[in-house]
Amino acid sequence: MFDALKDLSTEMIPAVEAEMRDVLKLKEKSDDQFYGMMHYHMGWVDEDLLPLEINGGKRIRPFLCLLACAAAGGDWIQAIPAAASIEIIHNFSLVHDDIQDASPTRRGRVTVWKLWGANQAINAGDAMFALAHTAMERLSTRGVMDSITILALRMLDDACLALTMGQYSDMQFEVRDDVSVDDYLSMIGGKTAALLSLSTELGAVVSGSEPEISDHYAAFGRDLGLAFQIRDDILGIWGDETIIGKSAATDIETRKKSLPVLYGLSKDEELRRLYREPETNDEFVDRVVEHLDSTGSREFAENYEKKYADSALAHLEAVSPHGDAGVALLQMTGRLLNRKF
Amino acid sequence: MFDALKDLSTEMIPAVEAEMRDVLKLKEKSDDQFYGMMHYHMGWVDEDLLPLEINGGKRIRPFLCLLACAAAGGDWIQAIPAAASIEIIHNFSLVHDDIQDASPTRRGRVTVWKLWGANQAINAGDAMFALAHTAMERLSTRGVMDSITILALRMLDDACLALTMGQYSDMQFEVRDDVSVDDYLSMIGGKTAALLSLSTELGAVVSGSEPEISDHYAAFGRDLGLAFQIRDDILGIWGDETIIGKSAATDIETRKKSLPVLYGLSKDEELRRLYREPETNDEFVDRVVEHLDSTGSREFAENYEKKYADSALAHLEAVSPHGDAGVALLQMTGRLLNRKF
Repeated sequence: MFDALKDLSTEMIPAVEAEMRDVLKLKEKSDDQFYGMMHYHMGWVDEDLLPLEINGGKRIRPFLCLLACAAAGGDWIQAIPAAASIEIIHNFSLVHDDIQDASPTRRGRVTVWKLWGANQAINAGDAMFALAHTAMERLSTRGVMDSITILALRMLDDACLALTMGQYSDMQFEVRDDVSVDDYLSMIGGKTAALLSLSTELGAVVSGSEPEISDHYAAFGRDLGLAFQIRDDILGIWGDETIIGKSAATDIETRKKSLPVLYGLSKDEELRRLYREPETNDEFVDRVVEHLDSTGSREFAENYEKKYADSALAHLEAVSPHGDAGVALLQMTGRLLNRKF
Repeated sequence: MFDALKDLSTEMIPAVEAEMRDVLKLKEKSDDQFYGMMHYHMGWVDEDLLPLEINGGKRIRPFLCLLACAAAGGDWIQAIPAAASIEIIHNFSLVHDDIQDASPTRRGRVTVWKLWGANQAINAGDAMFALAHTAMERLSTRGVMDSITILALRMLDDACLALTMGQYSDMQFEVRDDVSVDDYLSMIGGKTAALLSLSTELGAVVSGSEPEISDHYAAFGRDLGLAFQIRDDILGIWGDETIIGKSAATDIETRKKSLPVLYGLSKDEELRRLYREPETNDEFVDRVVEHLDSTGSREFAENYEKKYADSALAHLEAVSPHGDAGVALLQMTGRLLNRKF
């Protein structure tokens, strides 16, 4: 049976993968440790720099970029450098995030900083930042006009700035007691939505779309990112451990200021007192969830999720995405938002 | 009396400073801590984000870039975005270096990571990396052709990659016992010379010079950087404390593997034994210097310094730099290399 999403992912994702391997010099520098740290993080080699067959991530962003390019009527082959660039930027930010969060593992593997130390991991991230730009600069070698290549680079750096602003806020939230829902939405707007918005917008821009079309693609990616992040927040508290792969208690134990929690804190004095307690035990998590339930925090977050998901779909429908890529884009959106269309 | 270097620096450096303040949003974001950390590092504000009148650095790289542009016959006003970009990249690398070296001070001021923590400092550096690219992308708004703007961005990212490779090697040297003179030259080629080479080459490229000219400018900057770094290594051991502003013993106490030390280590078994000793005292530094003197390590390094300094001058003379900027470029070179012409 024909399955647009599956068929196109089988074609597009290996093309991005090949482009990234070329930019990050997987063949020429297979035993060079400077490149090896990047290859390890991308999921291509193990910690001895020997080849691996596992997947280094879901490659959602580059796939959305190529689908958007094709759905907007462009030749997705031309957008491969942009897709590769975005995925390398995403991975640069994960290498630095893992240091900042002191995370020992990522995607079930030991993190770069745990293996090679924080100093080398900072540097490996910096190298990936440079190479992500090198990837984007290759647009001009694929027949994309110079003016579009420069626009793409400007958009990339605006998104990187938004990403670092989101990361700044996220780290500030840990020590702030007065985080509002608006602060939170602005934070995830940078930390999660900026790169997803860049992915879909750039696909459209490379296809040659006018701003009235590419703006819808940008808004589609942004709202998809916001809905996806809020869904992740909800699953982080009420999700099924066997499905989400981590204890649903973790977000509460680490006092994460996610959307449902921020709403609960604003409504419930006892919850504010509880969240300030330094000690954590099983009873603690249960009591926090009780307070979140009684204040309607889950419904509050679900309303936001629905609002952004509906808006994402409206922006996508407004541009009538073309052909198989259009069908796949809708399928992908449904999968990310856990909806059926 | 007419002084080309002084006159042009009075004109050019404030122009770069204004461009950087614009890119880093000094006016609009004067009380925003995310931007404030960058403004602090640049030397524009104090740790309470209040305005400062001090100088944030010598701005050697952007000045060389603008001088090269004018000396190659170009309009240096057009190269201002390139000069600003290079200086912001240089400062991004210093913010991350200070974390990696655990340096408490820089230019007599407390470092960013000491004030706001390593995590925020990593992020502030990342933001400056993005904004340095934003600065370069402004070339196209100054009448520079799109193809030249893309070339400039490619050159920037190649230099950033070289910079991170140099930094990787420098950190590796701390734990390696087998560092050769070639390893060392390759390390400073990335860590110091790549950005200086980019500065002079980009100036020439923006002026519209052909590769046979801009290649000489690139080689001039590279060799100037190598000579300057080796001179710094020599002063780090035999320099006059009252002139260089730091104890001449520091480099030896920290077991820095600078060029004279590497040569001494390759020639002297007793020095190798000494350098492995974990303890440091006054007598230790004196004994190391004695061994460096007796092996001719200073002369060895001075020969390299002379070789690169001569080569830098030869490349500069090969392109007959024009006008006042040409005179100033020669004066600047003399000052950096402590030579009179």
